[in-house]
Amino acid sequence: MRTQVAIIGAGPAGLLLSHLLAGEGVDSVVLEARSRSYIEQRVRAGVLEHPTVQLLREAGLADRLDREGMPHAGITLRFGEPGERRDHHIDFHDLVGRGITVYGQQEVVKDLVAARIADGAEIGAQLWFEVSEIAISGIESDAPVVAFTDAEGRRHELTCAAVAGCDGYHGICRPLVAPRTIERTYPFAWLGILAKAAPTHHELVYSHHPNGFALYSMRSPEITRLYLQVPPDTDPASWSDARIWDELGTRLAAEGFHLNEGPVLEKGVTAMRSMVAEPMRRGRLFLAGDAAHIVPPTGAKGMNLAVADVAVLAGALRDLLRGDHRAADAYTRTCLSRVWRAEHFSWWMTSMLHIFDDATEFDRRLQQAQLAYTVSSRAAATSLAENYTGFPHGAVL
Amino acid sequence: MRTQVAIIGAGPAGLLLSHLLAGEGVDSVVLEARSRSYIEQRVRAGVLEHPTVQLLREAGLADRLDREGMPHAGITLRFGEPGERRDHHIDFHDLVGRGITVYGQQEVVKDLVAARIADGAEIGAQLWFEVSEIAISGIESDAPVVAFTDAEGRRHELTCAAVAGCDGYHGICRPLVAPRTIERTYPFAWLGILAKAAPTHHELVYSHHPNGFALYSMRSPEITRLYLQVPPDTDPASWSDARIWDELGTRLAAEGFHLNEGPVLEKGVTAMRSMVAEPMRRGRLFLAGDAAHIVPPTGAKGMNLAVADVAVLAGALRDLLRGDHRAADAYTRTCLSRVWRAEHFSWWMTSMLHIFDDATEFDRRLQQAQLAYTVSSRAAATSLAENYTGFPHGAVL
Repeated sequence: MRTQVAIIGAGPAGLLLSHLLAGEGVDSVVLEARSRSYIEQRVRAGVLEHPTVQLLREAGLADRLDREGMPHAGITLRFGEPGERRDHHIDFHDLVGRGITVYGQQEVVKDLVAARIADGAEIGAQLWFEVSEIAISGIESDAPVVAFTDAEGRRHELTCAAVAGCDGYHGICRPLVAPRTIERTYPFAWLGILAKAAPTHHELVYSHHPNGFALYSMRSPEITRLYLQVPPDTDPASWSDARIWDELGTRLAAEGFHLNEGPVLEKGVTAMRSMVAEPMRRGRLFLAGDAAHIVPPTGAKGMNLAVADVAVLAGALRDLLRGDHRAADAYTRTCLSRVWRAEHFSWWMTSMLHIFDDATEFDRRLQQAQLAYTVSSRAAATSLAENYTGFPHGAVL
Repeated sequence: MRTQVAIIGAGPAGLLLSHLLAGEGVDSVVLEARSRSYIEQRVRAGVLEHPTVQLLREAGLADRLDREGMPHAGITLRFGEPGERRDHHIDFHDLVGRGITVYGQQEVVKDLVAARIADGAEIGAQLWFEVSEIAISGIESDAPVVAFTDAEGRRHELTCAAVAGCDGYHGICRPLVAPRTIERTYPFAWLGILAKAAPTHHELVYSHHPNGFALYSMRSPEITRLYLQVPPDTDPASWSDARIWDELGTRLAAEGFHLNEGPVLEKGVTAMRSMVAEPMRRGRLFLAGDAAHIVPPTGAKGMNLAVADVAVLAGALRDLLRGDHRAADAYTRTCLSRVWRAEHFSWWMTSMLHIFDDATEFDRRLQQAQLAYTVSSRAAATSLAENYTGFPHGAVL
């Protein structure tokens, strides 16, 4: 088999890259280890930056997003000493003239798969699910080869002009490009809860509480998405539904705030860490999305960084195939300027909102001072808003 | 002897308080352990915030400041990877419509002493130098007594209605009010150099360099004031003039920048630490300035916090003597809102600009990302500018 670009991984990065390349007249084949139903169901991020939404619209991918997505004009920070605990609204529209949209990653994935298929991509031709034993060779040549075994156990060889590694942190591509990474692990994790309970607040609430951070969010008018800061080695089974609602009630408590309870549909523990792979390209193998970088979820940047990567990569690959390698040569630098901005912002949000067991009294006071400043200074709030809603695609700075 | 307010310490806080109280019709006596020439010569801070300059003008203390002070419209941040190292100007005037003034603390002190004397204060009556064995009693009563020994060895007792502790971190007042403090020590110090060399740059240059932080500043058209990050246990004697100029040359190097060398008039090592005393008042004893809080010098906040404290304290004491204790009761809270803002800002500047020996690669990249963001985002630069140039007196937030 031949194609122009072999894409490893059918998450948002791989599928969107395939779609954008098709728009540029470039053929691609997407190889995914999981099943189609798995990738269309797995619950991940849910906040789309403004430039992400713009790109999806321009790429003709936003029909359902525009119908079902929930536009948010801001977020709420909830904090304060006992007795002074209250909400502080960060008004993105007022501060930076743009907002965010809440729309689950799996919905983006569903839309992308549907769009690829509507565009003529066939499963078992341009889209392969449940493949295994992927092996990439010749990335330093102009004609890399990707060998893989399909769901029926048949071995294939795919010759291409470039490979896009969109297979996440645990995938096979990252070690081929950047064997060493720059990492940080945070001393806590998030217990994520998906509940069948109508949201009672129209925007996300980031709550700083002595017991730990809590995040109130939603995925639809019927589904609440909630998070609790927990120790990193937490077993989700140790959190009964009753304990979850009790702790959410404590950490999210505020004057006039009511938490709707309901059946817990899913719960899981997410590690909090940062990772950056440098470079993001070796020869004809390009990394994008989680294969190249991980951010703690506090800043809601993970999926948006993946989208920003492939927005750059689609054009770079189109040019490369035409013999112009400038954008490909600049790929690492272009993407990393945004990645480090996002790593810094995610660290900033994480360190401002979480409880650190080893914090000194001085650390705790600095944290309080930063929270108070962020909500009282227009400059500081604007800084949060411009980072949260996202910078235009391409290089940042 | 009797007075209304006994002021311990003739630094900027104590002397300015005495002047402001006189303007309110309140008598005071200032007791200082050092000699007049000592306090008028010691080299300390040199950056006056906009509200500090405003207050000194309104208090009739700015004649010489307005003639000899050097108004600055911004500062320069100098950083970058080898080969990309360059200057980034933070334009305070453009960002927040106000600037700073460079004028040495000892000049402020000279002006204050002169103003007190011009206003009728007499040495040995309202102003005492070289006093010793100060003992404060009765601060929980309405008539505290301050006993002290004068320069000639005579013992005196001063009965008053309130005592202002403006005697610095090592003074006797702080432990009486706040035996426990909230502190942080930074793992480095500053070697401060006063040189007879004409400044070659019109504003302060904050330089981030792999060898360590360096600060280029000036005190007059003939005097340069320079700082080098050094290990905390540094003996100034280990830094010869040649070594100082060599290292300054390295850390301050930039395209088009020339460093004038000249005789080193003074060199000394300043510890880098933060300290906050809570509360700032017990009974009739009120702390102000360094007696209540220390900041690392990176944000140039030390003297400005002292001025902000006494701007509040003068009015609070006037009211208290008239029987209205509301401002006195709010004194700690009013001042600490500014103190913690300054502690946070000073920590932010310090952590952004210094080299930390224990920094991980991830820490170093975050630092670079923060520097790059601070100079490229108007919101981030505005945040720096509003903090550096100072918030209006009274409570912050």
